[in-house]
Amino acid sequence: MYNFQQKSNQPHVVIVGGGFAGLYAAKELGNAPVQVTLIDKRNFHLFQPLLYQVATGSLSPAEICSPLRLIVGKNENTHVILDEVIDLDPEQKRVIMREGVINYDYLIIGTGVSHHYFGNEHWETDAPGLKSIENALDIRRKIFLAFEEAEKVSSPEEKEEWLTFAIVGGGPTGVELAGAIAEIAHKIIKDDFREIDTTKAKILLIEGMNRILPPYPEDLSQKAQESLEELGVTVLTNRMVTNIQKSRVNIRHGEEEETIKARTILWAAGVKASALAEVIAKRTNVEVDRAGRIMVESNLSIKNYPNIFVVGDLANFSHQDNKPLPGIAPVAMEEGLYMAKYIKAKVKGSSIEPFYYKDKGSLAVIGDNYAVVNLGFLKLSGFIAWIVWVFAHIYYLIEFDNKLTVMLQWGWNYLTRGRGARLITGEISENNLINKSFNNEHYPPTLTEEKETLKV
Amino acid sequence: MYNFQQKSNQPHVVIVGGGFAGLYAAKELGNAPVQVTLIDKRNFHLFQPLLYQVATGSLSPAEICSPLRLIVGKNENTHVILDEVIDLDPEQKRVIMREGVINYDYLIIGTGVSHHYFGNEHWETDAPGLKSIENALDIRRKIFLAFEEAEKVSSPEEKEEWLTFAIVGGGPTGVELAGAIAEIAHKIIKDDFREIDTTKAKILLIEGMNRILPPYPEDLSQKAQESLEELGVTVLTNRMVTNIQKSRVNIRHGEEEETIKARTILWAAGVKASALAEVIAKRTNVEVDRAGRIMVESNLSIKNYPNIFVVGDLANFSHQDNKPLPGIAPVAMEEGLYMAKYIKAKVKGSSIEPFYYKDKGSLAVIGDNYAVVNLGFLKLSGFIAWIVWVFAHIYYLIEFDNKLTVMLQWGWNYLTRGRGARLITGEISENNLINKSFNNEHYPPTLTEEKETLKV
Repeated sequence: MYNFQQKSNQPHVVIVGGGFAGLYAAKELGNAPVQVTLIDKRNFHLFQPLLYQVATGSLSPAEICSPLRLIVGKNENTHVILDEVIDLDPEQKRVIMREGVINYDYLIIGTGVSHHYFGNEHWETDAPGLKSIENALDIRRKIFLAFEEAEKVSSPEEKEEWLTFAIVGGGPTGVELAGAIAEIAHKIIKDDFREIDTTKAKILLIEGMNRILPPYPEDLSQKAQESLEELGVTVLTNRMVTNIQKSRVNIRHGEEEETIKARTILWAAGVKASALAEVIAKRTNVEVDRAGRIMVESNLSIKNYPNIFVVGDLANFSHQDNKPLPGIAPVAMEEGLYMAKYIKAKVKGSSIEPFYYKDKGSLAVIGDNYAVVNLGFLKLSGFIAWIVWVFAHIYYLIEFDNKLTVMLQWGWNYLTRGRGARLITGEISENNLINKSFNNEHYPPTLTEEKETLKV
Repeated sequence: MYNFQQKSNQPHVVIVGGGFAGLYAAKELGNAPVQVTLIDKRNFHLFQPLLYQVATGSLSPAEICSPLRLIVGKNENTHVILDEVIDLDPEQKRVIMREGVINYDYLIIGTGVSHHYFGNEHWETDAPGLKSIENALDIRRKIFLAFEEAEKVSSPEEKEEWLTFAIVGGGPTGVELAGAIAEIAHKIIKDDFREIDTTKAKILLIEGMNRILPPYPEDLSQKAQESLEELGVTVLTNRMVTNIQKSRVNIRHGEEEETIKARTILWAAGVKASALAEVIAKRTNVEVDRAGRIMVESNLSIKNYPNIFVVGDLANFSHQDNKPLPGIAPVAMEEGLYMAKYIKAKVKGSSIEPFYYKDKGSLAVIGDNYAVVNLGFLKLSGFIAWIVWVFAHIYYLIEFDNKLTVMLQWGWNYLTRGRGARLITGEISENNLINKSFNNEHYPPTLTEEKETLKV
């Protein structure tokens, strides 16, 4: 148990969460006359927009992660603490971590969101979602092991189940996952197996609304669907998932009920606020929305608590067009930068305007040379949109060497169709191999004599 | 349960293990008039000589791993099976896997070695060894979390324990780990923390013999020790480890007993044959050495079983200079290539000479610009040796894009002293956060009223 003492008289800004919002605030406050403490339970910033590429084996974790200490370590006014915030004491102005307590003058909370199964949290085991590096590696293992299993099983029905991939949710993540899996099955690994034809794999994208990418203009949704279909994805719209159970997805389409048999089911259908939101709400009495996100004031603060701010995906900012800002990286970055400016002004005794998000547009990638881009004044689809997507993502990667290696890796993957990162990791078992082998049902009965001449 | 049937009349070569030996045999047999089946429990080949760089955060797993299907998938005579061989039926010429059975005409076994604790297997929990990608990521987590913990704890004694790293075993792996950890602590992360001075970290390399790198010429051992000491490693020779228990290493030095307090203890002191060796010995009555390795004939076969061969680290080949060949990658590669040639000759009805290993020398790296190289006719140490080491390793990396990205990563690390891959992964917990926070001993007692106005 530790209790950090301030060694300076400068105001103390505590930032919880090193995502886009928290990190941009911390970086921008590096030269301000304040003390900054950045708390995260991980030691790295995760570039979430490319997480699906780790899940599908195009990129390695390190290529989209940057150690927090590396990014802000040079700022002498900045402390990094590896810990998890579990509670908040707004009256005494302090946050409580698993292993310590720390006081703040300004508190910025940006702990993001996790998967939302809308009351069916037990579906998670069979249909994992994609939020963390560990999720991505689990999903990668699921995808590539499915082909290995299909190769081994003898029953054609089982082969088909292993070669069926169901992705629930037609938002950007679902679209990106479906497109990437289709490219793996239909192009990248098509020569790798002997007992199966991976180009026969079925990739199903299941969406409850009447089109995929619902927040996009209709014609872009249409184009996205067409190019997914060209890649070999079956797009199923107007389908509500009613149940998920080990290799089975039940969906309702109007009056009809249908069961899909798929050994790989992925969840990309919804998000809810991270657990800390509930704690904040209890402690401050602030309102939350249906997804558990904190309703913030026009300066991102919590009502009645002018020194506590909520940023990024965790915040519901509805002071613009009467609808919440979307949970995307550009919004989070802007909110982080705003917080830094706001606090700098406060410290100087002045003030700044309420937060305003200038929409920079939205992007979704479908395949290795197809994307859709909505810049408001301009809608793009196809190769040009893909180029825009590539450069926008490279640009925002935090570290220069990540920019370089990701560019190189993409270029290489694009040229060779090889996926160097398609490793299945995280599961090995060599324990008790001996015992298992000698008491094994597979063991040939012809050998009756146990030769005990071992000379270890 | 599957039973692979041969679809061809060509002889069937079954290779167990996709390490250097197995993979080089499989690659070389790709154009031979035989059918090849490569069985491995992992879907990738691991370039073990660089594994310590994954453990110390310089490289990512994907940079030193290559998917087996990618390497041999284009060879139409080659099957890859992801499974673990657990038994052997030499009379019926078949191997038994966890999920299937397969017949062979020629069987090549190269499943390598794992850690050896010399009867103290319970030390493994406190002092993990480095053999798999998972080991490497665990060790990486241990190393980087140690600094995080040192930053957080308040007692100076505890800080010191967290900043003490004990590496047991002064062979190449121990030397490389010690050098890399010293560079991390004393150079790479020296500006990253506020409550500790990482340059004060103690890195202890413990060796039982009277010098490190015992198989090397004495003057190279001496030079290696000097340059490790320059990097800040404390080299302790003539020290026998008598016990390891959570953060404590007991060592004996002559008559003296000493206890080292270190929160990070790594094991690099010995290897033993993989579990399959014991099974092989039981089934074929072949002799094994003290480390459990299979004694092979001069053509790498098992006595009385002319169609079963053992290669790589798992084999004890003592037909040269009356001592076993060392368990290093060049030996394994040569043995793999020899097997391919041997089988090609057999199939043609001819035969080849017994196996002979032409020593190409040995290398060990100490720091980012210091290595020792023994080429027999030439001994090198220092920067030139390091350049030799760099190019030898790049040269043998299997895939071209790995060569490229590793070179780029090394160049970048060398220039910037930043370690992009120093991510701590594999452990997250968000479950029950709410419950924990509300029943928390840390919770400030000032808040007595539980505000139940949550609107989730």
